[in-house]
Amino acid sequence: MTLHEAVPGTLDEAAPSGDWTSRGGTPAAPGSGRLRPLGLREVTLRAGFWGRRQEINRSASLAHIEHWLEREGWLGNFDAAVAGRLPGARRGREFADTEVYKLLEAMAWEHGRTGDAGLDARFRAIVARVAAAQEPDGYLNTNFGRPGQAARYSDLEWGHELYSFGHLIQAGVARARAFGPDPLVEVAVRAADHVCEVFGPGGLAAVCGHPEIEPALVELYRVTGEPRYLRQAQLFVERRGHGVLADIEFGRSYFQDDIPVRDADVLRGHAVRATYLAAGAVDVAVETGDAELLAAVSRQWQATVARRTYLTGGMGARHQDEAFGEDFALPPDRAYSETCAAVGSIMLSWRLLLAHGDARYADLIERTLFNVIATAPSRDGTRFFYTNTLHQRELGAEPPEDAAVPRAASTLRAPWFKVSCCPTNLARTFASLAAYLATADDGGIQLHQYAAATLNVSLPGDRPVELEVDTDYPATGRVTVRVLRSPDDPWTLTLRVPPWAAGATVTAGGHRRAAAPGWVRVERRFRAGETVVLDLPVGPRLTEPDPRIDAVRGCVAVERGPVVLCAESVDLPPGARLDALRLERDGGLVAGLVDDAGQVVVTCRVGGEPEDGWPYRTVAPGGAAEALAPTVDVPLRPYHDWAARGPSTMRIWLPTA
Amino acid sequence: MTLHEAVPGTLDEAAPSGDWTSRGGTPAAPGSGRLRPLGLREVTLRAGFWGRRQEINRSASLAHIEHWLEREGWLGNFDAAVAGRLPGARRGREFADTEVYKLLEAMAWEHGRTGDAGLDARFRAIVARVAAAQEPDGYLNTNFGRPGQAARYSDLEWGHELYSFGHLIQAGVARARAFGPDPLVEVAVRAADHVCEVFGPGGLAAVCGHPEIEPALVELYRVTGEPRYLRQAQLFVERRGHGVLADIEFGRSYFQDDIPVRDADVLRGHAVRATYLAAGAVDVAVETGDAELLAAVSRQWQATVARRTYLTGGMGARHQDEAFGEDFALPPDRAYSETCAAVGSIMLSWRLLLAHGDARYADLIERTLFNVIATAPSRDGTRFFYTNTLHQRELGAEPPEDAAVPRAASTLRAPWFKVSCCPTNLARTFASLAAYLATADDGGIQLHQYAAATLNVSLPGDRPVELEVDTDYPATGRVTVRVLRSPDDPWTLTLRVPPWAAGATVTAGGHRRAAAPGWVRVERRFRAGETVVLDLPVGPRLTEPDPRIDAVRGCVAVERGPVVLCAESVDLPPGARLDALRLERDGGLVAGLVDDAGQVVVTCRVGGEPEDGWPYRTVAPGGAAEALAPTVDVPLRPYHDWAARGPSTMRIWLPTA
Repeated sequence: MTLHEAVPGTLDEAAPSGDWTSRGGTPAAPGSGRLRPLGLREVTLRAGFWGRRQEINRSASLAHIEHWLEREGWLGNFDAAVAGRLPGARRGREFADTEVYKLLEAMAWEHGRTGDAGLDARFRAIVARVAAAQEPDGYLNTNFGRPGQAARYSDLEWGHELYSFGHLIQAGVARARAFGPDPLVEVAVRAADHVCEVFGPGGLAAVCGHPEIEPALVELYRVTGEPRYLRQAQLFVERRGHGVLADIEFGRSYFQDDIPVRDADVLRGHAVRATYLAAGAVDVAVETGDAELLAAVSRQWQATVARRTYLTGGMGARHQDEAFGEDFALPPDRAYSETCAAVGSIMLSWRLLLAHGDARYADLIERTLFNVIATAPSRDGTRFFYTNTLHQRELGAEPPEDAAVPRAASTLRAPWFKVSCCPTNLARTFASLAAYLATADDGGIQLHQYAAATLNVSLPGDRPVELEVDTDYPATGRVTVRVLRSPDDPWTLTLRVPPWAAGATVTAGGHRRAAAPGWVRVERRFRAGETVVLDLPVGPRLTEPDPRIDAVRGCVAVERGPVVLCAESVDLPPGARLDALRLERDGGLVAGLVDDAGQVVVTCRVGGEPEDGWPYRTVAPGGAAEALAPTVDVPLRPYHDWAARGPSTMRIWLPTA
Repeated sequence: MTLHEAVPGTLDEAAPSGDWTSRGGTPAAPGSGRLRPLGLREVTLRAGFWGRRQEINRSASLAHIEHWLEREGWLGNFDAAVAGRLPGARRGREFADTEVYKLLEAMAWEHGRTGDAGLDARFRAIVARVAAAQEPDGYLNTNFGRPGQAARYSDLEWGHELYSFGHLIQAGVARARAFGPDPLVEVAVRAADHVCEVFGPGGLAAVCGHPEIEPALVELYRVTGEPRYLRQAQLFVERRGHGVLADIEFGRSYFQDDIPVRDADVLRGHAVRATYLAAGAVDVAVETGDAELLAAVSRQWQATVARRTYLTGGMGARHQDEAFGEDFALPPDRAYSETCAAVGSIMLSWRLLLAHGDARYADLIERTLFNVIATAPSRDGTRFFYTNTLHQRELGAEPPEDAAVPRAASTLRAPWFKVSCCPTNLARTFASLAAYLATADDGGIQLHQYAAATLNVSLPGDRPVELEVDTDYPATGRVTVRVLRSPDDPWTLTLRVPPWAAGATVTAGGHRRAAAPGWVRVERRFRAGETVVLDLPVGPRLTEPDPRIDAVRGCVAVERGPVVLCAESVDLPPGARLDALRLERDGGLVAGLVDDAGQVVVTCRVGGEPEDGWPYRTVAPGGAAEALAPTVDVPLRPYHDWAARGPSTMRIWLPTA
């Protein structure tokens, strides 16, 4: 009945786990690593912050996406291919096929966890249309290779053909893991074989302008055991960075073809491309035992988090090329912070968490989930942010209900985009979300993310464990883990303590003790009915930026647990303009609860209206004595809910008085 | 012998002045307005800050540009058109023709002021090649209308055909004013007639995606007296803003087709397009007596200066669409501040200065000249900044000597760009620079910009005035105006006192008195040999931004006279990193002179190296007591000279301790 010390740092090596179909599948299944992922039937979300969002994804977003894919003709492209109506009938951008594949992946996970027969029928109907368009040699792309279209692989910089295969294969992997043998899995295998034929040793020594094929091929190797797929992924990772793609306006760093993966120090260029490639490189490193490559990507992750990541966890500071900026160039008002980059960041952090067992990776996943993934969709799951700005200066116009918006409008969530990668990326993430909550190793179970959930896990030696996690986190900080079933011998329940949770405690076996940030382990001979209670102090706190982040100098943000808060114009007292507020740092933070998170009331001074002439003035000697402005109470609410009440201006970083 | 009070505000109405060829031409000649422009033989720059730069433009930049236009084949496009080798032989972007036209404009001004016969021969040789490509109906564009090319006016959004005609016509106007009848003038008139045929009443009711035809047609009207050109310019101005162009990814505001010119409140969208259009709208308003239109553009200028202009005078905050951002969105590190936008801003401010006689317009011209126009070219006039960032975070790589760089690299000046609008825009501006120094009205002469120069002006009633301006401004603040010749009756010499020049004095007739910012007038019966001395305090000063400019909160800049200073890594003491410096606001500013401007030494604290982990930290209650960092002396040098000594990091805005 020992309650172990909190042990920051890494955990023990976990043995791999093979069969997934009975466990509902999981989105990344490395052959080795410190931690073992769990399946979508091993971890089940119940109603709560994330359970509700997953349910909205199931009941609203999937149908919404399917509707728009039909409406925009991106699904119809496959029918047109079969009917010989291409290129004339082709609709959408060059990568439109991939949105269909990402929907299929989302459906596969969703079916894996629920077994919903209606969803399965819809899935099979789409797969039939896709499969019919595959060519005898395994090639499948509605935008290339036919008379009147560009030749296959004639535009590797921008054509997205291998990227497209990557998402097709990921969908196949999801189906294989969540269900088993299936026509989509066959399509994916044929596609992978074709890719290996064309780009294998002795073939085209090239890479794709958009990484994605790399993690997909390793995942397919994990599913099929076919080593050729792993070798091909390794080839793609090794080839990149030597200038194999043409130089472009944004430079080769845009698609990470400037520096070999194992030599780079930090993620750079297009943020989605960068995170997908890094995820694939981790997969290759783990499966080939390439410690140097794994160390390189881990180092890049650390540098990127330390110098190129927003408070929200968002990545990508530049609109022009959807890219990382230089170190500490993190403007809140022109933050790109693409939703898909957050998905890519989670893919990467999850793989590193499994490989290293280091809590920092789960910390970033939590931050990204609560402040980008939860931010992007509307409450009803039918509108989406493509970019996730941290500061909205002007009231935006409502995007049209009935048309795809032409670009990454950040002012309000839109139902669809002409480049609509984000809605489908959210869908596959929400459908597989439960997989990111917990892991297992030979010694027990690790809880990384806190949400109302049920766990049914078999520990080695066929020792079933059943846990119920009860919490309304992040509204409050209490997480109660109830043991419903346990083997008789001791095992370890490990809980993550976020870095902001100074003063956290864990209570087990009637003993309460401090739990320092990192891991807290509870090793016990658990009995059915007993509980382990983690108390995380989620009270509001002021956060200040590294002084090298010039764009938010002199500002603070307010966070509450894992949730970043923001001020929105719709909540301001009459007459108070958002850009005139100056937070009193010592004014106190009064917390209250709203909805499923929290609200915090802060005291602000309301600055005067500066003169509207030349906006730079000579500093008066000795400094100007300014009249003390009046104070107002300003409610701050969760950033993830901003713009839910119509157009507003918004800021996370508040200038101080 | 009265020395008048300094009179801020406007001046009296000036009568128009018709014949230009004897006076060397001038770049904008309104038919009415408060002030009359002077010709390039009426105001002559002598050796000094601007005289040296004009001489480098003449001796180096013009030949450099001609060389690259030949080398890149953009001049050869005209030969290819004549030889029927288009579209196969076409080189460069769709607007490549315009760089040839802007070179011709620069050469025309240069010949106008110097009469250089060698230059005239080069000019005529180029004109012959251009003229040969003009089609019988006046159309002239090497990129459209031939078999295998897109049809004429089939892509008004991006084709730049009318923009191209605009620059052709401007070159013709320059030649007509500076020289007289000439083949290029005939080409320009035929082109203008063609434009009026196609786009006139009853014709294509369209506008060009890039304004420029508007000021060009009004200027040609001023040269020829042909009212059709004015009416056509008016039509173009009135049509825009009603969604006549297609919507594009950046929105119609990109080409100012979102709001009619007379209804807009501020400049927006692509900064070069916005300033060119506004300049044309002023031209139309002045010639048609449209007070409402003039007031609208004046209001837009004021709002743009108050809320969307960099300390340098630079305009355009966004890389993505080379556009103005929202109000107060002025990031120094991603400043676009395109060189061409500065040229457009000067075109606009100059027209408003002539119309209103308000010193504020000349203030902005001065700021823009010293901090963007002087910044863009290298010391030797053969390399150029396309964008003019205010903060360089990383050491850039030297652009290649022998290739056009693919994009707007801001790290170092490049010899040529694939889009090379800026070098030619600088060339025409430097060649006509003297015209922006001074004006006349019925009562006398106004000096707006201070540079070593000679003025030969005939006041109404054939009363010749000859002045010599002697100054090493901005190195020092003394401007001595020596009267070499004057009529016997009194006239008024008006001098601009910049807004930062508190404590300025003027000395005339042996009396010295205070000269408040705005205008200071000296009305006298001047005698040959006497002097008027203006003393402007150019000592260094700290400047702080409007608190609504979030990106530079907590920072100050140091200015010295009209010159913005910056800190450059190459000047730092060993071991001091640019991003670790914190200026002591009360540390004093020690000024010294270097080169042709000034250097200022400031005292900075050197911040420690923050931890390289998560770059946001919880604010400690009561605030953390930080150890006092050591101080270092840091020399600040003129921004316009930055990166002249090789790659460096640089910042204008310095965080305070």
